[in-house]
Amino acid sequence: MATTAIDADTMTEQFAAVRGATEALCDPLEVEDFVVSSMPDVSPTKWHLAHTTWFFETFVLAPHLPEYRALEPRYAFLFNSYYVQAGERHCRAQRGLVTRPTVRDVFAYRSYVNDAMMTLLDRVGNDPSHPASAVITLGMHHEQQHQELLLTDIKHVLWTNPLRPAYRSDAPAPAPATAQGWIPVAEGVHDIGHDGHGFAFDNEGPRHRVYAQPAELARRLTTNAEYAAFIADGGYRQPALWLSAGFAAVQAERWSAPLYWELVDGAWHEFTLHGLRELDPQAPVTHLSHYEADAFARWSGARLPTEAEWEITAPEPSAVGRFADSGAGHPSADATDKPQQWYGDVWQWTQSAYLAYPGFRPAPGAIGEYNGKFMSDQWVLRGASCATASSHARRTYRNFFPSDARWQFTGVRLARDVA
Amino acid sequence: MATTAIDADTMTEQFAAVRGATEALCDPLEVEDFVVSSMPDVSPTKWHLAHTTWFFETFVLAPHLPEYRALEPRYAFLFNSYYVQAGERHCRAQRGLVTRPTVRDVFAYRSYVNDAMMTLLDRVGNDPSHPASAVITLGMHHEQQHQELLLTDIKHVLWTNPLRPAYRSDAPAPAPATAQGWIPVAEGVHDIGHDGHGFAFDNEGPRHRVYAQPAELARRLTTNAEYAAFIADGGYRQPALWLSAGFAAVQAERWSAPLYWELVDGAWHEFTLHGLRELDPQAPVTHLSHYEADAFARWSGARLPTEAEWEITAPEPSAVGRFADSGAGHPSADATDKPQQWYGDVWQWTQSAYLAYPGFRPAPGAIGEYNGKFMSDQWVLRGASCATASSHARRTYRNFFPSDARWQFTGVRLARDVA
Amino acid sequence: MATTAIDADTMTEQFAAVRGATEALCDPLEVEDFVVSSMPDVSPTKWHLAHTTWFFETFVLAPHLPEYRALEPRYAFLFNSYYVQAGERHCRAQRGLVTRPTVRDVFAYRSYVNDAMMTLLDRVGNDPSHPASAVITLGMHHEQQHQELLLTDIKHVLWTNPLRPAYRSDAPAPAPATAQGWIPVAEGVHDIGHDGHGFAFDNEGPRHRVYAQPAELARRLTTNAEYAAFIADGGYRQPALWLSAGFAAVQAERWSAPLYWELVDGAWHEFTLHGLRELDPQAPVTHLSHYEADAFARWSGARLPTEAEWEITAPEPSAVGRFADSGAGHPSADATDKPQQWYGDVWQWTQSAYLAYPGFRPAPGAIGEYNGKFMSDQWVLRGASCATASSHARRTYRNFFPSDARWQFTGVRLARDVA
Amino acid sequence: MATTAIDADTMTEQFAAVRGATEALCDPLEVEDFVVSSMPDVSPTKWHLAHTTWFFETFVLAPHLPEYRALEPRYAFLFNSYYVQAGERHCRAQRGLVTRPTVRDVFAYRSYVNDAMMTLLDRVGNDPSHPASAVITLGMHHEQQHQELLLTDIKHVLWTNPLRPAYRSDAPAPAPATAQGWIPVAEGVHDIGHDGHGFAFDNEGPRHRVYAQPAELARRLTTNAEYAAFIADGGYRQPALWLSAGFAAVQAERWSAPLYWELVDGAWHEFTLHGLRELDPQAPVTHLSHYEADAFARWSGARLPTEAEWEITAPEPSAVGRFADSGAGHPSADATDKPQQWYGDVWQWTQSAYLAYPGFRPAPGAIGEYNGKFMSDQWVLRGASCATASSHARRTYRNFFPSDARWQFTGVRLARDVA
Repeated sequence: MATTAIDADTMTEQFAAVRGATEALCDPLEVEDFVVSSMPDVSPTKWHLAHTTWFFETFVLAPHLPEYRALEPRYAFLFNSYYVQAGERHCRAQRGLVTRPTVRDVFAYRSYVNDAMMTLLDRVGNDPSHPASAVITLGMHHEQQHQELLLTDIKHVLWTNPLRPAYRSDAPAPAPATAQGWIPVAEGVHDIGHDGHGFAFDNEGPRHRVYAQPAELARRLTTNAEYAAFIADGGYRQPALWLSAGFAAVQAERWSAPLYWELVDGAWHEFTLHGLRELDPQAPVTHLSHYEADAFARWSGARLPTEAEWEITAPEPSAVGRFADSGAGHPSADATDKPQQWYGDVWQWTQSAYLAYPGFRPAPGAIGEYNGKFMSDQWVLRGASCATASSHARRTYRNFFPSDARWQFTGVRLARDVA
Repeated sequence: MATTAIDADTMTEQFAAVRGATEALCDPLEVEDFVVSSMPDVSPTKWHLAHTTWFFETFVLAPHLPEYRALEPRYAFLFNSYYVQAGERHCRAQRGLVTRPTVRDVFAYRSYVNDAMMTLLDRVGNDPSHPASAVITLGMHHEQQHQELLLTDIKHVLWTNPLRPAYRSDAPAPAPATAQGWIPVAEGVHDIGHDGHGFAFDNEGPRHRVYAQPAELARRLTTNAEYAAFIADGGYRQPALWLSAGFAAVQAERWSAPLYWELVDGAWHEFTLHGLRELDPQAPVTHLSHYEADAFARWSGARLPTEAEWEITAPEPSAVGRFADSGAGHPSADATDKPQQWYGDVWQWTQSAYLAYPGFRPAPGAIGEYNGKFMSDQWVLRGASCATASSHARRTYRNFFPSDARWQFTGVRLARDVA
Repeated sequence: MATTAIDADTMTEQFAAVRGATEALCDPLEVEDFVVSSMPDVSPTKWHLAHTTWFFETFVLAPHLPEYRALEPRYAFLFNSYYVQAGERHCRAQRGLVTRPTVRDVFAYRSYVNDAMMTLLDRVGNDPSHPASAVITLGMHHEQQHQELLLTDIKHVLWTNPLRPAYRSDAPAPAPATAQGWIPVAEGVHDIGHDGHGFAFDNEGPRHRVYAQPAELARRLTTNAEYAAFIADGGYRQPALWLSAGFAAVQAERWSAPLYWELVDGAWHEFTLHGLRELDPQAPVTHLSHYEADAFARWSGARLPTEAEWEITAPEPSAVGRFADSGAGHPSADATDKPQQWYGDVWQWTQSAYLAYPGFRPAPGAIGEYNGKFMSDQWVLRGASCATASSHARRTYRNFFPSDARWQFTGVRLARDVA
Repeated sequence: MATTAIDADTMTEQFAAVRGATEALCDPLEVEDFVVSSMPDVSPTKWHLAHTTWFFETFVLAPHLPEYRALEPRYAFLFNSYYVQAGERHCRAQRGLVTRPTVRDVFAYRSYVNDAMMTLLDRVGNDPSHPASAVITLGMHHEQQHQELLLTDIKHVLWTNPLRPAYRSDAPAPAPATAQGWIPVAEGVHDIGHDGHGFAFDNEGPRHRVYAQPAELARRLTTNAEYAAFIADGGYRQPALWLSAGFAAVQAERWSAPLYWELVDGAWHEFTLHGLRELDPQAPVTHLSHYEADAFARWSGARLPTEAEWEITAPEPSAVGRFADSGAGHPSADATDKPQQWYGDVWQWTQSAYLAYPGFRPAPGAIGEYNGKFMSDQWVLRGASCATASSHARRTYRNFFPSDARWQFTGVRLARDVA
């Protein structure tokens, strides 16, 4: 994992900000909402709060704060996610069945670990070479990832309830219409991947050369209106548009629209964090599986971009201005700041399988399990979504999900070959 | 459903007592505990509280209190269990995924319905022939059934948690040893079944004649020590002792002891509502499936009783004195009051399939779905358990569960043929 | 198992007749037809041929013919069905995947065992007390059971093929119409069960007393026309007519008619051993599950008989004349000989669970696994079907299948209470 | 699909040769062997024979031989594999349940279609631009693919049988030891993919540029002895060596060695087409999943090659001499002709996901379903195996299977980075 140059004062403040941001996301929730898991991919809110805390306890405090004593040693079993080398762990399928520790207990656990972290952060001070520095930074980015998951997971939990309760009561403004256009990708050898300056996850490097074919990328994301035209044209009923496994999923799961869309009196509505709302035609379509993104692109006479094409073409997040922090939870509530919607609306499926870059080596030990062991049968997504913390976005960021995942804020930027 | 002769004052008081008893069972619980379902058979506590309330709303208030207006019409969908004729209902498998209404909301729903019931009970007054009278009585017995389920379900929920939290913190006294003996069953024609005086569920009648073979029933229940001897003798590894489907279940589920038993440092312990405790050797064994009860009986050179043998032999509950009300939650905490353990310890598996008595006719309408439609692939259990309300026990009571059910307080009274 | 009084000559002839009858059933088959299993309940023809042979090898030749040497010792693993005490056995689910031994090899195995049996039968001679006598008789009855299974299984195999090939090319004559009527069952104490004279399976005894309520049994079986009226009246769409598990099966399996019925140009047809044919309205309806038989009876304002009522009322098979031997494979091809259709058309579902009679004890050893270990979650059927060997029918015969079994020749004789 | 320059005489002869080769593979089989499917990936031999015939009937004869009449129109339903645009088709899961048409019927079907093909081939004559020419060539390559599948499938069928019958009775010679070494891959821009001269499948093109990193490829394949060392070192018990989904498969499927390996008296044996044989230590390891190949490479301190590295480095098949035609069925029976084992031993897993090359366009119509629709969640394999027809191998060939496939002849050629 690349080290980071954040100095001591900043790190303490940043730690407090990240931890506080997670808890702020819970403000609209009832105690009951924290407990359940509505499908295997979804973890309870309570679990996200505790797991991110366990991460600091296990990988930061245990090795780097000698006087640290666990508040409850059995939490290590309950809140380890998938780090085999960090010990035995609770079955993922049972996360939503564990009512204790209570929500109150979990907040006390967070507070206890935060206190110990403050002690350690004092010692780390201004020294980026302190042995704890890199893993603290990693822990903060890890927690930002779980902020996004917390939102996508609670959205699914609330939707599972036939009463369809809303997470937020305010209503986003409709997205303005923007004309589509195409941005060229220059043919030839390019360097992509993270160069080691500043923080990045291990899977973003090493930086290396790739050969890009001549191509173009869409200037903006695919809209709800465009996707609704695909549906109206019978897109879900034409096997020739789909990968074989994709059409099998359409039939087995009876998909006929993106997750969260439903017809109310003949008009498309969408369940959002603001409740069930009439579809916003100019907003980016979201909650698509890779299968759907791919079929839509084929129907459009286009294709999905490769991750290299995306990275070569996209600007740095800093160049497009701040976007709303995680919790906005609605794509394109404010599209004017993001002329090309690279970050802050929806993650963009690519046609690149999630594989190791040439020369990739995971870190030794349990931390090495962070990314590398998932490099099979997944696709890379690029950009960032309306549920991503703005400080978490990077041009080299490689998000990844399997072909049929739909509960994330996932959408489409088209690409096409240039003859 | 037989009508009941309870007069108006008593019914109002009894209604308040039953409803209050349900809520008292929730006192030891945290909000989080109310939400989850730890396996398909288990309903969330919150659901039990709401479903019993829906029963009064649907079958009593809607038809009999003209001015009644539902607090929230969508609750009818969420809290109907299996009454097809009462309308569409939520999928049972999703009961544990619904976080709203909150626990607070559900208690408000109970209060709202209780208020309306008090208005109606005033009108019903002393008139047992009032059209609402019988179904109010049924609703109270229905709620008593759910009191027992609430306890068995929350026991399973707490056990599913690796932290093994206890429901109650007090500790029951060990059960005293009692010598085994045998009670004769007279050969010949007997009348069994409910005769229509006082309340009974529809499946307890009509009263009818059966022919009993000469036999004997055990004077007391099988103990933990006796069952441990079966385990020690390799009972779970000898297919010749088991029904074919029973041994298949042993292998598929890897059963090697009753549900909730575990070895701690070589000594059998049992998870109870009082937490994980060392096994009480003289207490009745419980949490056995029918398969295990049957195999144990075969190993003992005996068999399970028929339901007719049980009913012919058992005394009325009133003849054996009061037993601890539901919530005791531990078999034989006080065995001296129940010399023969007919009621108040564990339900006793019989070798009788749960079938209609000759001439049985379910009630018309949705209420007729209460019992009759479950008459396939289940066994009758007789008696009552430590989780049954004492006013709920009857000599003619027919409880029923399938062969592999283990999460109820189910045990064994042996029987044997007389040559 | 009761002994039999068949003398030596008869037994040799009978053995040859039974073994030959099994092989004659295979005459219409292609080699390919012997191999497959079209669903878990169905065994390949090849397996039936070999398993019945293994039965004689294991339970007769091995203990009683000292010089006997197995043709291929590994067949014991392949062709043991469920006799745990007879050694390890091949997984039932894989029976249809084993291409060797070939059909030719299996016939050679039969011939090899037949030769050894002839040697033994010479020694057994006229002595019914010879230790091999009873188990040889059992083996012949066992083989007759498999004759019926062979036919019902190959019928399912052929139907699974979209080409719908016929087993036989001839066409049965249509059944004549017969008016329905009712036969009284006398109230009071009756003796039922086998009395030990002549052969019976162990589950048919001991003979014992039961108390019968006043009732009536239908004079003839339910016809296809009567069942079609139930379908036309929406029988499969009315949950109130069904057991809860039955309606769940209707929905899960999308049942809308008996197995093998299909609509061709709006007219009901039925796949038979003679191929797909237009439904014969007066023939007994068959291939019903217990769930369907029970729902039909409820729709008819009647019920299924108990097994005691059936046995009290039915004549001995010898009193109704010979019926067509197994292989007829079509109910009521010749109804005139069987005025009341007790035997030789379809097995008749009862409302009696398949349980041990009072005092029942299985035989010691592996043979004791024949019947007793299946006494859970099954129903008794009485009579005999068009696929049963006529010499195999008995008034006390207890056939048994679970609630959802439909591939046997199973139908309905109605019963009703008398006030 | 690229056209081919094979002239008319050659095509007729080649057609006869391909069709004859398929049938010759069936010589050792019994009729029963043709019928079954031992797991979902495996098709019956009978089906392979008929499906390859249906391919010519549907894609060649129907459009190009006007007077052609189908022998049996219903075969189109039974023998279409996955060509949605070619009409409805039989459920893959039921292929092994269809006993008719018989094997004899299927050979008659082959003969009937062969005759019609001969008529058509006469007309196509020397004209490579004849509209039928390209699809006839495709059909021959398609049939060669099924020759390999027929062998891998029948191997699995025979292995599923506890009697473990052999396909061939002869015994291959042991493979000689060869020292390992490394071949450099030149860094920089390379062209890969088929250039359109001669036949290739659509997925092998277009030819395009890639950037290769500096690397080395192993001079020979990984041997059984090397893989056995991985097992002996606890390779299957160390999660850190595995992809997360790979280790989950190890645990779920209880993998502890390659498919077909078993310990006999402490010595590794392998089930082969020649029966169960002691493991040949110097022969290439085969029947590995991608998960196992990847874990082995990690354990070796190496990695799998990319498909570009493989194609850049491998010689043309013509440069390494003929190898044994399909049916050899045993890797390295004759290693001396193949100094580096690129072709003719085992397919070599790469670390490249099976994706479209830049600019890939599937053919229009049903033929376009041949390859493109499977481009998700699979890996590319390169080379050819001991079951591949020698005329079927190409340097640009892209075989593909999912991560857990083990029943093909799949093995490992290691690769490593050069610093």
